[in-house]
Amino acid sequence: MNQWPGFAIPRGFKAAGVACGIKASGNLDVAMLFSDHLCMAAGTFTLNRVAAAPVQWDRALVPGHGLRGVVVNAGNANAATGNQGLQNAEKMAEMAAAKIGCSDRQVLVASTGVIGHQLPMDKLQIGIDAAAAELSAEVEAFQAASRAIMTTDTVPKVAGTTLTTATGETVHILGLCKGAAMIGPRMATMLAFILTDAKIAEDHLQQFLSEAVDDSFNCISVEGHASTNDTVLVLANGQASSAPLAGDDLVVFRQALRDVCEELAKMIPGDGEGATHRITIDVTGCLDRAEAMAIARSVADSPLVKTAIHGADPNWGRIVSAAGYAGIDFQESEMSLRLNGFPLYHKGVPLIFDAVKVSSHIRDNRETHIELIFTRGSSSIRFWTCDLTAEYVHLNADYTT
Amino acid sequence: MNQWPGFAIPRGFKAAGVACGIKASGNLDVAMLFSDHLCMAAGTFTLNRVAAAPVQWDRALVPGHGLRGVVVNAGNANAATGNQGLQNAEKMAEMAAAKIGCSDRQVLVASTGVIGHQLPMDKLQIGIDAAAAELSAEVEAFQAASRAIMTTDTVPKVAGTTLTTATGETVHILGLCKGAAMIGPRMATMLAFILTDAKIAEDHLQQFLSEAVDDSFNCISVEGHASTNDTVLVLANGQASSAPLAGDDLVVFRQALRDVCEELAKMIPGDGEGATHRITIDVTGCLDRAEAMAIARSVADSPLVKTAIHGADPNWGRIVSAAGYAGIDFQESEMSLRLNGFPLYHKGVPLIFDAVKVSSHIRDNRETHIELIFTRGSSSIRFWTCDLTAEYVHLNADYTT
Repeated sequence: MNQWPGFAIPRGFKAAGVACGIKASGNLDVAMLFSDHLCMAAGTFTLNRVAAAPVQWDRALVPGHGLRGVVVNAGNANAATGNQGLQNAEKMAEMAAAKIGCSDRQVLVASTGVIGHQLPMDKLQIGIDAAAAELSAEVEAFQAASRAIMTTDTVPKVAGTTLTTATGETVHILGLCKGAAMIGPRMATMLAFILTDAKIAEDHLQQFLSEAVDDSFNCISVEGHASTNDTVLVLANGQASSAPLAGDDLVVFRQALRDVCEELAKMIPGDGEGATHRITIDVTGCLDRAEAMAIARSVADSPLVKTAIHGADPNWGRIVSAAGYAGIDFQESEMSLRLNGFPLYHKGVPLIFDAVKVSSHIRDNRETHIELIFTRGSSSIRFWTCDLTAEYVHLNADYTT
Repeated sequence: MNQWPGFAIPRGFKAAGVACGIKASGNLDVAMLFSDHLCMAAGTFTLNRVAAAPVQWDRALVPGHGLRGVVVNAGNANAATGNQGLQNAEKMAEMAAAKIGCSDRQVLVASTGVIGHQLPMDKLQIGIDAAAAELSAEVEAFQAASRAIMTTDTVPKVAGTTLTTATGETVHILGLCKGAAMIGPRMATMLAFILTDAKIAEDHLQQFLSEAVDDSFNCISVEGHASTNDTVLVLANGQASSAPLAGDDLVVFRQALRDVCEELAKMIPGDGEGATHRITIDVTGCLDRAEAMAIARSVADSPLVKTAIHGADPNWGRIVSAAGYAGIDFQESEMSLRLNGFPLYHKGVPLIFDAVKVSSHIRDNRETHIELIFTRGSSSIRFWTCDLTAEYVHLNADYTT
């Protein structure tokens, strides 16, 4: 998965990705995504109380009209940086605005990387100047942007779709995201940028984005550590049609946006640091969505569940016990478990199963499926995470120093 | 730490630890701790909805009078085992009661090990018969019991103290516990058995235990996965004095019980699976204890914080961001951080520090000290956890199969 697909670029958008030395590796580290036309923008942001400076800048601007685009740096999160960090986020918007020829309040900003260091503004100026000069509507420019937002990601993460309205107009949606660790599920997670040429009412755009994020970026985790910088932005420049989407077209766009968000979100645990398995957790038969979510998160964030899957160990007691401490007052007799389709536990009673066969099935498939089936109601949730490996520990035991 | 100390054995208690093949390793796996005299017993148990069968048996009996002791097996948790598991827990009590010459409802039971497998009752019968025959008041018998309750623990965990009452009587407290993984902080954690010859009112015993557990076993974690079997039991056989403890003696006993619980509890993250650092987290200046606890847990359970400490990496952004998603509505300007005494972050602003020096300090000390200092109020908490290592992953990626 995660190869750059041949998605069409939404009309009127340009991109660039350049290197300016914020990343010590010398890899691409500044991205710009700008529209020739004014955009409507919607967004969802981290709920972490230590919210990064760029998050605070963006929150004041979206949902809103008249935006032109977003400038992003990787390698430095500009988080926990105090007033100087806020000034630097504003300065970052100003630098891009000067190049684009717009006001700084028409520019969104995003940062990702190490927490607690001030942005190197000299380098950033050079990066923004270079990126602005390279802005292009070619696919290669968007590819460069998708790489410039990566940190420990091993692949760029892109998804998109095209839909045709009732009147025959074509609407494009293109999404880029990044994330491989510090992925916690309590909010919009990590950086994601969705571009569309749809013409759509502002209320609809924010509502559809919030709904889509709830079922996608809010349903993933790598290790459950919620970032300071989580940001999902959608920019809609309205170039696809003269009239705003309405009726069935609105329904189709809403689903398309949701599909793009889900596809992007799944890529993050699929590329989780050191991960060897992506784990899909289906919790069904709950009283309400919050209950299903609490159980799914508890299972997804258990290091014992994650290491068991890594070891292809059908040690299902770790799964049901993780459900047991989710804070939901269920009875054991209300719970059953299937692992990769194999029934292991039925209404509170362990089943006899072929452990060697189940273990082989886990080992031989990169995708793992955990189904926790309750008999309490009709609400369900789907959640994605990944396994926990020694490689994750190696990657994270020596990151800043 | 964790060497068997020369603690005095409370009067009238006998112990034994034997091997009967429940552990594939052939190590000791059945322990008995019994009193010649009737005991008062108090206990705290897991809040996991998937509570093990022995927990369900014990909950019906404590707090209570007329108990004789506890029989424990390691290597099998008797959890998520349905009705057959409940029958086996009762049968386990019966087996021990038959040997002791008491009723089954005078016997507490505890199990620890893999979840979801029925207890091998034939082996257990052999183990209980052998243990009952070996019951002894000698220190070696208590040493054997402390080893028989171990699973992946690398050392037995014992603590104790002696106090003298106002009238010159000597009261002994001896505690044994186990635990190295599946350690979550939301309740009494893992197995701990505390024996005392104190004569004390039942209400006091349960109240003092609950208080002590709140500040000890409920303030530790290894990876945050709350066990199905968590149990702390205290047995008091009243042999130390003719009259119940009162006045100042009660105050001294209460503190002594708390000290023993804290000493035992700290040993668990100190022996956390694969751990190379024990981490003490002090959260101070909060509005209330619950707020301090939420922040401490969030930091303690973050794999990113735990891997950073393992790597001796003063990546303090991981600590403040873990505090940030604890669900407490603080402002960054209300928070400061010290790591091993070094100030890194002050009221929302990053400080300049010598990263090499802080890193060396972390690397060269097995004990790590995280201080999160808030300016919101006067409540505080102390919490203990350990780092996350590749060895933890190795140990847990291949446990049952």
